Amino acid sequence: MASDLIIGRNAVREALRAGRTINKIMIAPGSRSGAVKEIINLAKQQKVPVQNVDRRLLDKTARSTNHQGVVAVAAVKSYIELEDLLDNAVRLGLPFLILLDEINDPHNLGAIIRTADAAGVHGIIIPRRRSVQLTSTVAKASAGAVEHVPVARVTNIVQTIKKLKDMGIWVVGADMEGQELFWNVPLDGPVALVIGGEGKGLSRLAKENCDIVVRLPMHGKINSLNASVAAALLTYEVLRQRGKGASDA
Amino acid sequence: MASDLIIGRNAVREALRAGRTINKIMIAPGSRSGAVKEIINLAKQQKVPVQNVDRRLLDKTARSTNHQGVVAVAAVKSYIELEDLLDNAVRLGLPFLILLDEINDPHNLGAIIRTADAAGVHGIIIPRRRSVQLTSTVAKASAGAVEHVPVARVTNIVQTIKKLKDMGIWVVGADMEGQELFWNVPLDGPVALVIGGEGKGLSRLAKENCDIVVRLPMHGKINSLNASVAAALLTYEVLRQRGKGASDA
Repeated sequence: MASDLIIGRNAVREALRAGRTINKIMIAPGSRSGAVKEIINLAKQQKVPVQNVDRRLLDKTARSTNHQGVVAVAAVKSYIELEDLLDNAVRLGLPFLILLDEINDPHNLGAIIRTADAAGVHGIIIPRRRSVQLTSTVAKASAGAVEHVPVARVTNIVQTIKKLKDMGIWVVGADMEGQELFWNVPLDGPVALVIGGEGKGLSRLAKENCDIVVRLPMHGKINSLNASVAAALLTYEVLRQRGKGASDA
Repeated sequence: MASDLIIGRNAVREALRAGRTINKIMIAPGSRSGAVKEIINLAKQQKVPVQNVDRRLLDKTARSTNHQGVVAVAAVKSYIELEDLLDNAVRLGLPFLILLDEINDPHNLGAIIRTADAAGVHGIIIPRRRSVQLTSTVAKASAGAVEHVPVARVTNIVQTIKKLKDMGIWVVGADMEGQELFWNVPLDGPVALVIGGEGKGLSRLAKENCDIVVRLPMHGKINSLNASVAAALLTYEVLRQRGKGASDA
């Protein structure tokens, strides 16, 4: 997997100018040259978060490369625009989407992308902040599926939920306190599954805006599932209800 | 999570004498004192693998502790005997077991144990060799569920499959080339699910000895699922077919 770091003022500035998808930019204090000012402006325009970090962190991150006080973390693969992702889903037939509300573990995001590929999900939507982004660890955990599953980033998951509902997509959240068991709810229409972050689950606002919140049966002592496991159970329940068994379906 | 290392000749010898479950013992060359000979004999009796390793590996593993050429990797939690696990499953009603054929990623084993707890699986069976054991990483990935799900170790998974079949348990393997889709197969009787290792899937002998081999529907480009995801899909299909929705079921 190629490195997902862009190191040095010129490299980061050019990446921003070229419209490459950047997850965040780390800048050491005292780096306020013209190039750095331009980087900060471009980042602002493109809504790329800029972090002020200790220079020693950049030394460690960049290893022996001269970072000149600026390191960007780039997506391994570019994100797709939400509009394009939705157009695509509608064009392909019954829309089938996954929204991830603040997943932080790259192994979970990778495993969810891998499951999404296997299940024929049309795309994944993640928040721009407070979520792991498409890093090389995610790509590796996805077993390469990241190259095949469109991922869009949004500023506000709740606004996106409302938008999907306006489009006639049934938005189904997963939460321990869901009213209905997931396999008792019709999932064979246009559907978007909303999966919460590790430990916290869905935010209150996300829950309130879903068409329905479903739960997974629990019979144990710990009674929680890994986020990628919960996502997979819901994803494959959609396939089961749609009768999508054959590989050519 | 407590460390799962036992460091030094006396500590390792006493752990073996006390019957604590040890995954393996690492011994540096030249360590052939009386205590080390006794450790090797006890390990042989208890079928604990002994590895000859470079002394520098022990230095690194033991950090600043004086290892005297001997370090044991102990299970975080003791394993249960296969007979006890099976007796327990029969006593609790419809047996529901998971066999893992050479899972190597501790995150996968942890996630599977977590799912097994949530689904009320009676126990997990893993091979004694060529499998990740109950390490502290597994315990952490299980979100603590390792304390609640009995795990037994066996020398030969194929012999265990035969034993389960003799007990009238329906042994269901999961493989890309399975004849039937998993949700078309009756899973509401006494059942043991057999999940293969990452990348390789089920061994030929394991497949041949299952009552049936099922596949998961695949509609993508990469078309493989994380082992813990595959295990979860089968596990929850058993619950669905048994009508185990309510938390008190």
